Amino acid sequence: MNNSPIGVFDSGLGGLTCVKQLLQLAPQEDIVYLGDTGRVPYGTRSTDTIIKYAMQDIEFLLSRGVKILIAACGTVSSTLPHSISDALPVPYLGVVESTAAAAVKATKTGRIGVIGTPATIKSGSYLRAIDILLPSAVLVKNPCPLFVPLVESGYVQRDNPVTRMVAEEYLAPIKAAGVDTLIMGCTHYPIIKDIISDVMGPEVTLIDPGKEAAAAGMALLKKLDMEALRDCSGARNYFVSDGIENFHQNAELFLGSLAGGSVDQIAID
Amino acid sequence: MNNSPIGVFDSGLGGLTCVKQLLQLAPQEDIVYLGDTGRVPYGTRSTDTIIKYAMQDIEFLLSRGVKILIAACGTVSSTLPHSISDALPVPYLGVVESTAAAAVKATKTGRIGVIGTPATIKSGSYLRAIDILLPSAVLVKNPCPLFVPLVESGYVQRDNPVTRMVAEEYLAPIKAAGVDTLIMGCTHYPIIKDIISDVMGPEVTLIDPGKEAAAAGMALLKKLDMEALRDCSGARNYFVSDGIENFHQNAELFLGSLAGGSVDQIAID
Repeated sequence: MNNSPIGVFDSGLGGLTCVKQLLQLAPQEDIVYLGDTGRVPYGTRSTDTIIKYAMQDIEFLLSRGVKILIAACGTVSSTLPHSISDALPVPYLGVVESTAAAAVKATKTGRIGVIGTPATIKSGSYLRAIDILLPSAVLVKNPCPLFVPLVESGYVQRDNPVTRMVAEEYLAPIKAAGVDTLIMGCTHYPIIKDIISDVMGPEVTLIDPGKEAAAAGMALLKKLDMEALRDCSGARNYFVSDGIENFHQNAELFLGSLAGGSVDQIAID
Repeated sequence: MNNSPIGVFDSGLGGLTCVKQLLQLAPQEDIVYLGDTGRVPYGTRSTDTIIKYAMQDIEFLLSRGVKILIAACGTVSSTLPHSISDALPVPYLGVVESTAAAAVKATKTGRIGVIGTPATIKSGSYLRAIDILLPSAVLVKNPCPLFVPLVESGYVQRDNPVTRMVAEEYLAPIKAAGVDTLIMGCTHYPIIKDIISDVMGPEVTLIDPGKEAAAAGMALLKKLDMEALRDCSGARNYFVSDGIENFHQNAELFLGSLAGGSVDQIAID
């Protein structure tokens, strides 16, 4: 038993999709979330910059006494080397490994598609993570740089013609390759999963990284006997590195009816 | 006569549209450009953050001995207060004032449209700048948050259906208001000026802020007798706060055949 909070971080607010899953899976847990909104997006930064930013995020969460670190940001998860994450004082979990495991479990044909930010796709991290688990897998990937700005601009309705047109362009090579499983390798993408599903067809299983990271995080806490024990809902403390106005505008998009808790701005650099 | 360099800065690489105009207008001038690509975009940041970043950019350019500062970033130009810019040790010029002056000169009906990033539009700076020059002007404005990611994703061809659809949506209220002049209040927008012009119609004059800032900068240097005097082309030194790879990918988009010069990465924070 351990009543310390779960720490979740992301370059922006997309990681709230992971928090939403945690709130559903384990409402008794305290959660500390850090969204580095002052420096979002990480996806277009260099490797050195991404690692520097990730370490500053992690140091902040450690200063809040978290018992586990969940990197809900695909870019960080793809970029932070094991030599760093293995040396952290609490268990660390990136979305990439847990998502890769879920995809391997879901596929029947071994043909798996991956979409994500340019940095996530360029890093090849899903390829490596899946290759360890299923060496025979055939992987098809494509970066989707416009999906995050489209979601953040609210172009998320199932019949939005702009997002649909961009999705058809981005997904065409994935679809042509005949995959049966598609990893939505960025926390923003599940918000437009209806559009992605319409383009890909109902026979393709979509894997939601936020959901998988939350499930893997709770499974790890259970294994280590570190789950919280309390009779009421846990506390939710959200931190951002830019103005909190933007958080409030997006909280409903990502958290829906589960929004609530304190929101504070911090200086991350 | 003053052979020190002209300093131009922007949150990212869009300010290169201003540099391109300077290279055409005054090839004998040395230019130092800073693109804060490690923290782009500024448009969605809070006022305090924008001012902090702008001052760090300015301090860097001053350390390079510039004789004039041109804020090619609409967000900075809209946000940095005169109390700060008036106290700088060299002349400072933001794109907003010079662009407003050009729009007032161009309009016949006094009905002027303004598009820009959410922060630029929210600041109301063009409204104030135009109101001083032409109190009877009717201003119609609309933020266009997707234009920058669309341009940076290369969706810039005149017949691109996605950018055209987004442009039609963003420009509809401006068009309905019957403006005869439209300020493209962000350095990225002139790259899709064909699309904007197709949507607005040939009778609407488009104002390009990078062009106006470059012209105003050279006019100011002439007035102060601070133009460079040399027989050959000046030196071009470009600095970015993230990897230089991204600069090279975008240099052609913004500078075209005028690309060339040194490119270095610096730590801005």
